[in-house]
Amino acid sequence: MPYLPSVQKLIDEISKLPGIGPKSAQRIAYFILKTDDKFVYELSESLLEVKHKVRFCENCFDLSEEPLCKTCSDPRRQNQILCVVEEPKDVLAIEKTNEFRGRYHVLGGVLSPLDSIGPEDLHFKDLLRRITGEDITEVVVCTNPNLEGETTAMYIHKLLTPLGVTVSRLASGLPVGADLDYADEQTLTRAFMGRRLME
Amino acid sequence: MPYLPSVQKLIDEISKLPGIGPKSAQRIAYFILKTDDKFVYELSESLLEVKHKVRFCENCFDLSEEPLCKTCSDPRRQNQILCVVEEPKDVLAIEKTNEFRGRYHVLGGVLSPLDSIGPEDLHFKDLLRRITGEDITEVVVCTNPNLEGETTAMYIHKLLTPLGVTVSRLASGLPVGADLDYADEQTLTRAFMGRRLME
Repeated sequence: MPYLPSVQKLIDEISKLPGIGPKSAQRIAYFILKTDDKFVYELSESLLEVKHKVRFCENCFDLSEEPLCKTCSDPRRQNQILCVVEEPKDVLAIEKTNEFRGRYHVLGGVLSPLDSIGPEDLHFKDLLRRITGEDITEVVVCTNPNLEGETTAMYIHKLLTPLGVTVSRLASGLPVGADLDYADEQTLTRAFMGRRLME
Repeated sequence: MPYLPSVQKLIDEISKLPGIGPKSAQRIAYFILKTDDKFVYELSESLLEVKHKVRFCENCFDLSEEPLCKTCSDPRRQNQILCVVEEPKDVLAIEKTNEFRGRYHVLGGVLSPLDSIGPEDLHFKDLLRRITGEDITEVVVCTNPNLEGETTAMYIHKLLTPLGVTVSRLASGLPVGADLDYADEQTLTRAFMGRRLME
């Protein structure tokens, strides 16, 4: 006697989420079966709402509910300095430090030959468009301090230096192999203050 | 700059699932944002479908898409022997051994004073109804071999022995403190074969 088809289907769907193994998926599915209807309706609606409402900013590829995100449409942000990050959550981490008043560019990932993610899969073309079209003089590369992040930083350095912009990298202070997103605000602030030129 | 409201709402909902902390919830929410619409629609629908279709069997409280579950409505199952389990997933674990041909009764949990779960919160009343109404001569208590499971087994033993039925317990073979649901089929088979009388 296997699972009921509808329960099996739910377990299969949940198993596709990141970090959820088959036992966790089963546990969550039973929780869904036992919990009150209201929560499940809200969860189901929340999933659809996010897909309907949230898109990527047309300029910087941060998350946004409008064509342009809040940072891109804010005239008070500095145009000269651009922070390049891997993911939208990194924008949030940096905003929390209150240290950076420039603009952002979200790559949507990192270069990773093992996962067959090459330059054409990330928003480098739009980065070049912004460098030539906006008044940017300095690019701070804020990719994570691990192998893929460093590789991506090197790539950006090579890509942008011929265009006459200064390319800097977050200072040490972040332990190597860590996730930018987990850093405490003070460490991240220090890393920002001590950013170093790439040469 | 906090999360977009719709993203924050989704993260909050996902955090309520068992075993999901705030960082996992954030990771899953970003996965939802990046993945294709089809998967999210299917997941959302699957959640609702399970809540609409799946109910508890009116007799044994196993999961079912009909008023009576497959085991209860199967005339080939033995009526004399009844297996009492904590949760529907335990029925599946026992069915996989192909060792048991009797019927089931799902308690819906275990006695746990710390979580204020008393006898009135579990399906004991229906267990008594079945003992007096059906031809049951032996009850095998298959609660998990931990403190709450043992307490619940003792309670069932005291409750049913006056009614003239034999009450047995799964044999040792399952390591104490383990979860029945994680046992391999052979261990569970051996535990079934060596079940001991409660006295």
